[in-house]
Order: sequence, then structure tokens, then C-alpha cells
Amino acid sequence: MALFQETEYLERIRNTKKRMTDAGIDVLIVSDPANMNYLTGYDGWSFYVPQAVVVSLEAEQPVWIGRGMDANGARHTTFLKEDHIIGYPDDYVQSPVKHPMNFVAEQIKRWGWHNRSIGAEMDAYYFSARGFAELQKDLPRANFKDGNLLVSWVRIIKSDPEIEYMKQAGKICETVMQTALDKLSPGVRECDAVAAVYRAQMAGTSEFGGDYPAIVPMMPTGEKTSAPHLTWTDEPYENEQAVNLELAACRHRYHAPLARTAYLGQNPPDKLTRLAELTVEGLNLTLAAIKPGMFCEEVEIVWRKHIAKAGLEKESRIGYSMGLNYPPDWGEHTASLRPGDKTVLAPNMTFHMILGMWMDNYGFECSESFSVTQNGCETFADFPRKLFIIN
Amino acid sequence: MALFQETEYLERIRNTKKRMTDAGIDVLIVSDPANMNYLTGYDGWSFYVPQAVVVSLEAEQPVWIGRGMDANGARHTTFLKEDHIIGYPDDYVQSPVKHPMNFVAEQIKRWGWHNRSIGAEMDAYYFSARGFAELQKDLPRANFKDGNLLVSWVRIIKSDPEIEYMKQAGKICETVMQTALDKLSPGVRECDAVAAVYRAQMAGTSEFGGDYPAIVPMMPTGEKTSAPHLTWTDEPYENEQAVNLELAACRHRYHAPLARTAYLGQNPPDKLTRLAELTVEGLNLTLAAIKPGMFCEEVEIVWRKHIAKAGLEKESRIGYSMGLNYPPDWGEHTASLRPGDKTVLAPNMTFHMILGMWMDNYGFECSESFSVTQNGCETFADFPRKLFIIN
Repeated sequence: MALFQETEYLERIRNTKKRMTDAGIDVLIVSDPANMNYLTGYDGWSFYVPQAVVVSLEAEQPVWIGRGMDANGARHTTFLKEDHIIGYPDDYVQSPVKHPMNFVAEQIKRWGWHNRSIGAEMDAYYFSARGFAELQKDLPRANFKDGNLLVSWVRIIKSDPEIEYMKQAGKICETVMQTALDKLSPGVRECDAVAAVYRAQMAGTSEFGGDYPAIVPMMPTGEKTSAPHLTWTDEPYENEQAVNLELAACRHRYHAPLARTAYLGQNPPDKLTRLAELTVEGLNLTLAAIKPGMFCEEVEIVWRKHIAKAGLEKESRIGYSMGLNYPPDWGEHTASLRPGDKTVLAPNMTFHMILGMWMDNYGFECSESFSVTQNGCETFADFPRKLFIIN
Repeated sequence: MALFQETEYLERIRNTKKRMTDAGIDVLIVSDPANMNYLTGYDGWSFYVPQAVVVSLEAEQPVWIGRGMDANGARHTTFLKEDHIIGYPDDYVQSPVKHPMNFVAEQIKRWGWHNRSIGAEMDAYYFSARGFAELQKDLPRANFKDGNLLVSWVRIIKSDPEIEYMKQAGKICETVMQTALDKLSPGVRECDAVAAVYRAQMAGTSEFGGDYPAIVPMMPTGEKTSAPHLTWTDEPYENEQAVNLELAACRHRYHAPLARTAYLGQNPPDKLTRLAELTVEGLNLTLAAIKPGMFCEEVEIVWRKHIAKAGLEKESRIGYSMGLNYPPDWGEHTASLRPGDKTVLAPNMTFHMILGMWMDNYGFECSESFSVTQNGCETFADFPRKLFIIN
């Protein structure tokens, strides 16, 4: 059974078709697993083989096309009618002589859409250069257009039921962050701290279980804080060191990320304590400034002005739209809180705002995930904003 | 510091260049994170942005090109010289007006390789259709060729140090599987069983910690066993039901997957018990038949003949090459144990052989990860092969 009411999926499809019409796209081949899920409910770890949801202006319901063995998964998780679920034979899988997109092209020909304007998600993770080349070869009369992020822009405003799952993820994330802080201690191996975090992510709460977040837990310390995407080792945490905690929880593929900074030891440097105060103050007042109707870039200006008073600047973006997603990223690649982004904030948009200040040999970060409300914003997790001292 | 000796990376690069020469490729753009790691040591959760390792027949060392903030990660994890690590500015990230592959093309022009025969991994997960289109646009004088799986085929024979990490992963996987069996019980929520598994995967052993496997734990029960890639829920396991356990452990990105089947309850159906005996017997004798020099397809024939005696057949492949990898798959997409695969088994090739027999409303699966040795094969984990009865 699909996660949401059928009416909600139909609304999402209507909104997608509107954007398709505006973009001059008759048929959209959706391969981004989050977009496939958004339009149909499909949820499975099957994106390691090519698959698609095909939306046509000429058809009411989209069609799911995937590996034959995953058709049952589509029956379990989507609202689609049986004849809108099509599995391809297993000899298409990792074959040197044929490609699943040849099968997708066959279906498009069968439906008579081979000479339409066809959109493909050109920069999606699981739509390959080869897949596109096969479509071009098999559908020479089609007019291909880039449909990248088309559905993602529909997704940017969440429904109330979606917000509810993000709130549940926020609740789980509170226990995830507390688990990390409880476990961190000099001498504890990084892998053991990460193990405790993973356990908390999946166990969730007694009311609702957790799902796998789209990004692994990041808990770097010492030198590695300057290399933000290195994962853990089995070395122990050391005393008198800061640890950056970039964690998340996930509920039915909806995310609530949360970042905090901890210091292991008795003697946090004064400059770190001051940086923490400055950053938390900035986080508080930037969140307080958020209102529907603002441009995304205006949110960033609030923060920029705040740190400028301390003589500091931070050039990168401070946040991004996020929600429903799959590895390798929970970000939606649409709106960013950064200079030049004119996206207008609207109720039920959801962001992760992460303020990280990196000096020569120390740093501090603190973040919140939130939804824009009618009058301001509301964070998904309720967790103290400060430098955590662990000794 | 890179994980392996520099001499080992140089050997891998030499073998890659040999294959490039055979394929008529002068310059290879490697975007598969496992292949990037294999050639340079690079290991980070940064594949959610476009990145590449560029190998040229005209240059001794490859060049790592990635997001500026990940250059430090490359310095930490690769053997490359400082001037072979190039970060692109952050305004290339998720930009509507430029793409990181424009930056890669710029570098290729700078090195004077713009009119060479350039290979791209056309079907790799993290090399997009858009990325390829940008390269074609920026390098109109290049002759593009498909370099897909070129490095993956070099990787198929592991070095002894690589085998050592896979053995460590196998050791961790024994505790992972035992943890799952200890935790499974009627009334336990699926998410809580998965939480215990995740914890064991990362904690590893007291000697060595675990890394994140490329696929999430799969522990379906009841109806969901017929939909193999659905992930867990927060529903409780029920009594008198079978559970399929498709688990793995990972050490420094090297995998050892392992599958077993458990039955919760006092009364496993006779037909399930008989199927388990047949399958385990087949697994034992197929493993015993493996010798260097065999074709991959010959391994499958041993199994096929065995189940044919019981009047059964299984059409899909029974195993595949695996080792170093990143989400979404630990398989290498090269050799498969299936009809028609003429890959010749050689010492230090590593496979996951998974025998799953699915009847109308019940099934059994059992697997082993192993390396081919001088005389036969050796499994990475030592774990009983049977139907586990939990009551």
C-alpha cells in the first residue's frame, strides 16, 4: 500500500504535468529514485539497476518500469494499477549486449510516443550517459529535452502529511544526537560511536521506527575536520579535541539532518567558545528572521550581516531544500540559501540550514532542519544549540 | 595516507593503461567511486557531486579532480602528489549555469589532451548524461569512447592485501549474522533487528572496525520475501514465519556479503526443511567444484545439475564478482556465475555466490563470499550453512 492517499499522488502528478507543459515536454522519463517515489510511492533499494517512472501528458497514471524481480515491490508500495507496473526480463541486467533503457524505449514506441518531446533527468544520479545514448539511438524521432529537477521543483513544497513524517524524523534525530553525545569519550573508537548512532537511527522511537538516511553519519575530529567527507576510522577519539557531528534521522525516506559540535576535554579554547556563541546567536536570529515571501538569498544576508559585525565572512551557501531522498544525498538540488537565489520562501518548504565556521585550526558548526510556516519557521528537532563539553 | 603501498597503486595504473591501449583510449575519465579509490586510494562520501580521476597514457600519475572542499580528503587518502589534486570552485556545485565536467574539460584542454581519444565510464552511477554532454560540448575535437568497466575488469583479480581486508570483512560478517539471529524473535520490530545489525556492522571486532556496506541490510519476512529489495518497516516479526537475511560487512570499502534463512517458530514446514537441505548440499558441492581455470558458466552448471535431480531449475545467475565498492551496489558488474559467462576463474578473484530458491509461497537462500585460491576456493566467513530455527 502506498504511503499517502491516492489523491495526494494525483495532485503531485497534476503539478508535474503543469511543469511539463510549461517546459514543452510531452513525456517525462523519471529516474531519480526520490522523484519516482514522490510520483508513485515506489520505495525499494533497486536503484542500482536502471529503472524509470514514465509520465505522459496523454496518460492519467504514470507507468513504473523496473527489473522484473522488483515489480512485486512496486505492487507493494505504489498506488499504480497492475497494468501500469512493467518489469523487464533479467537478461537486461548488467548485460554486455542490451540495456534496460532499450526496454524503456520499446514501451514508449508501443504507446506511440516515440515522436514526442521527451524529457530525461540529465543530471540525476541513476540515469547514466549510456542510458541516455540508448534512448537517443532507439527513439530517433523524439525531441529530447532536459527534464532535470522538474519533479524536484514540484517536491519543494511539502504536503502536511509529508511535514508530519519530517517531524517524526526530527524526533528520532533528537535521540540520535543525544546518543552520539552520550557515547563520545576519549578512548572510544570512532567506529563504536558511529555504531551507536546507526543503532539509534534505525531503532527510532517506541512509536515509530527509523529508515536509512541518505548520507552516512559524519563525526570527524582533529585534522579530519578539515576534510568534511571522510568517513570514520577505528582510531579512538582523543582528549582536548573538538568533534563535528553531522547526523540525521529518516522516516519513510523523509529526512531531518542536524549538526552540532562537541568538545572532548576540560579546556575548550576561548576562541572556540566565542565562535560557538557567535554562531549560535547567528543561527537563532537567522531562524527568527525567516518569513514566507522572502527570497532565499535574503535569509543568507541576515547571517552574513551578523558575522560581519565580528569581522568574519563565509562565502558558501548556508542551507538547502531537503526532504524525501535516497543515497547519496538528502538535499534536493533546488533552492539554496545563498547569494543570488531568488526562490521565494513559501509555507511547507523545508530546509537544512547549516552554519559552519572554519578557522585555521578550529571550527564550529550548528544546524537546524525546519519547515517554513505561515508566519515564520518551525524546527523539526528540539535540541540545545551550544558547544557541548564532554569531560 | 593511502591504504596500500604506492607500488600497488602504480601496478594498478599500469594494468589500466594496458587495457586503455588495447581499447584505443588515450585518456580515461574515471568517475566510479570504487575505480577512483582503486587507482588512487581516494575514499570519501563526496560522490554526490561530480568528480573524476583522469588517467592519461602520457602521464605517469593520474589526477584527482573534485570539489574544492574535498581536496583535503584527497590529500589524506591518496598517494598522489600535491599538484595532481585539483579542486573546483564551489560555484560549480548544483549550479544552473555551469557543471563540474566543464571544469574537467578545461583541465584536459590545459594539458593539451583535447584532441585525444577520451574514454568515459558511460554506465557508471555517478557519471551523468549531462556530465557527458558537457564534455562533448567542451571537447569537440576529442574522439569519445566507452570506457565503462575498464578499471573494474582490472580490479577483478585482487592483491593479497586486498584479500586480507575481505577476510577481515568476513570476520565482521560472522558477528553481524550472529547478531541478527540473536535479535530475531516474534514481536521484535523489523527496525530494531536492523538497528542491531547496523551496530554490529560498524563496531566490527575489537581488532578492526567496520565500514558502511554498499547495500543496506535486507531482512524481509512473510509476503515481503517475494519483493527482494523492499527495506524494513517498524512492524514486528511474526511467529511461524521465515526471514531472509541478506547481510554484509565492509572493511576499508571491501565487502563480504552473507545470506542465511531463519525460521521463527516451532514448526518449520517440511517442504522448507527439505528445500534448505537441497540448497545447502548444492552450495557445498558447488563451492567444492570451484577451481582456477574453469569458466564462470561451468560453476553454475554444477548447481543447475544438482537441483535438476530434484526436478527444480533456477534461471538467474547464482553469483557475481565483488569487492571494493560504494553504494548502491557491492557487485562489480563484471563476471557473473551464469550461463554464457566465459570469464576464466583465476586465483584471487572474489565472488558472492547466492543460492536462492523461491517456490510459490516459501523460499530459502544461503550464500558465501569467497576468493578463488590456487586449488579451489576459500570463504571469507565461517558460519553454519543451514536453516536456523528460532523459537
